[in-house]
Amino acid sequence: MVSQPGLFVVLEGGDGVGKSTQVRLLADRLQASGREVVLTREPGDTGVGARIRALLLDPAHPEMAPRTEALLYAADKAQHVAEVVRPALARGAVVVCDRYVDSMLAYQGAGRVLAADEVEQVARWATEELRPDLTVLLDLDPEEAVAAIAGKDRLEAESVEFHRRVRDGFTRLVARDPGRYLVLAARGSRAEIAEAVWERVSGELSVPGGTVVP
Amino acid sequence: MVSQPGLFVVLEGGDGVGKSTQVRLLADRLQASGREVVLTREPGDTGVGARIRALLLDPAHPEMAPRTEALLYAADKAQHVAEVVRPALARGAVVVCDRYVDSMLAYQGAGRVLAADEVEQVARWATEELRPDLTVLLDLDPEEAVAAIAGKDRLEAESVEFHRRVRDGFTRLVARDPGRYLVLAARGSRAEIAEAVWERVSGELSVPGGTVVP
Repeated sequence: MVSQPGLFVVLEGGDGVGKSTQVRLLADRLQASGREVVLTREPGDTGVGARIRALLLDPAHPEMAPRTEALLYAADKAQHVAEVVRPALARGAVVVCDRYVDSMLAYQGAGRVLAADEVEQVARWATEELRPDLTVLLDLDPEEAVAAIAGKDRLEAESVEFHRRVRDGFTRLVARDPGRYLVLAARGSRAEIAEAVWERVSGELSVPGGTVVP
Repeated sequence: MVSQPGLFVVLEGGDGVGKSTQVRLLADRLQASGREVVLTREPGDTGVGARIRALLLDPAHPEMAPRTEALLYAADKAQHVAEVVRPALARGAVVVCDRYVDSMLAYQGAGRVLAADEVEQVARWATEELRPDLTVLLDLDPEEAVAAIAGKDRLEAESVEFHRRVRDGFTRLVARDPGRYLVLAARGSRAEIAEAVWERVSGELSVPGGTVVP
């Protein structure tokens, strides 16, 4: 694919690691620096995606097959990239996204029964090979992650062992292309993490990094 | 994949060619011969599939991207094969299905803007490579097909040119593996078509073929 004038930053990690907070802090700081920011998330940040998300999280469908689930996540990604991410990058915005393809690979590939390389092929096709310029991985011990979350839906009801496999999935993705990742311990303070994220993102944008923590 | 004890028969063709009628006639005749028959269709013949179908046909989403649409059809297929088709074949039933992967390839690959080989790869993954033992293609001139259908939803509102590309897509699929297809002119009488279908299917099952048209 052709390179984009904007910057595509993704926050990744298991449930309960504080991604949403950091996405918001980063978006605020980028906005304060005068950049156009598009804050978004997967799955569900389009009209079509919301419908897909409702189906994925509906407890009325325990019979959903693993490939069905993976293809629905991929369909959501396809819509999200086509409708939100690419247009924003094309006009030079910074896109800050809560979860992206890595989550799908970690949850579907490592966490479930499907072959990781096959799930990745589907996800790459869905997104037309669009990859983040930077992925921030908030890393947390699976026991702590499980303790931090409530048992609200199908995914969050899974065991510590499931979260361990998800974490291993993320770790393998980082190892393949470490230059595009910033891995931070999610146990750090909110402010410390925000500062480390900002330092790296402002470097990628070549704008002056701040020292005041929002 | 391992071979299945049952028989998997698919009826294919553009809109308005009379597939549903022939599916029913074939199922009735198989039942009368004492076989267990599972009559099904794509998309939508599972609880999850019905939800996906509702989204695909919802006129509120004209912004749906081509890859999103293809992945939703693939998700429906994955569920349909896992929940309905494979279990039925495993217990020795004859599965008679109104549309399958070929429709997706003809409509999405040939009819739309996506690369046919890529759409096929996704569809094959969704169905775990399960292919019909026999596909009956009801072939109709695009002008007649358009005349035969009402403009009820997004697909049916498309032009004659679209239907021509769909038909060309089906024709290419037959050319690749002609031994697995029976191509019949959809202009023939209902009874003639039913008889030709029965002759071939009963041959595949090695049961005595009848001459009485249902």
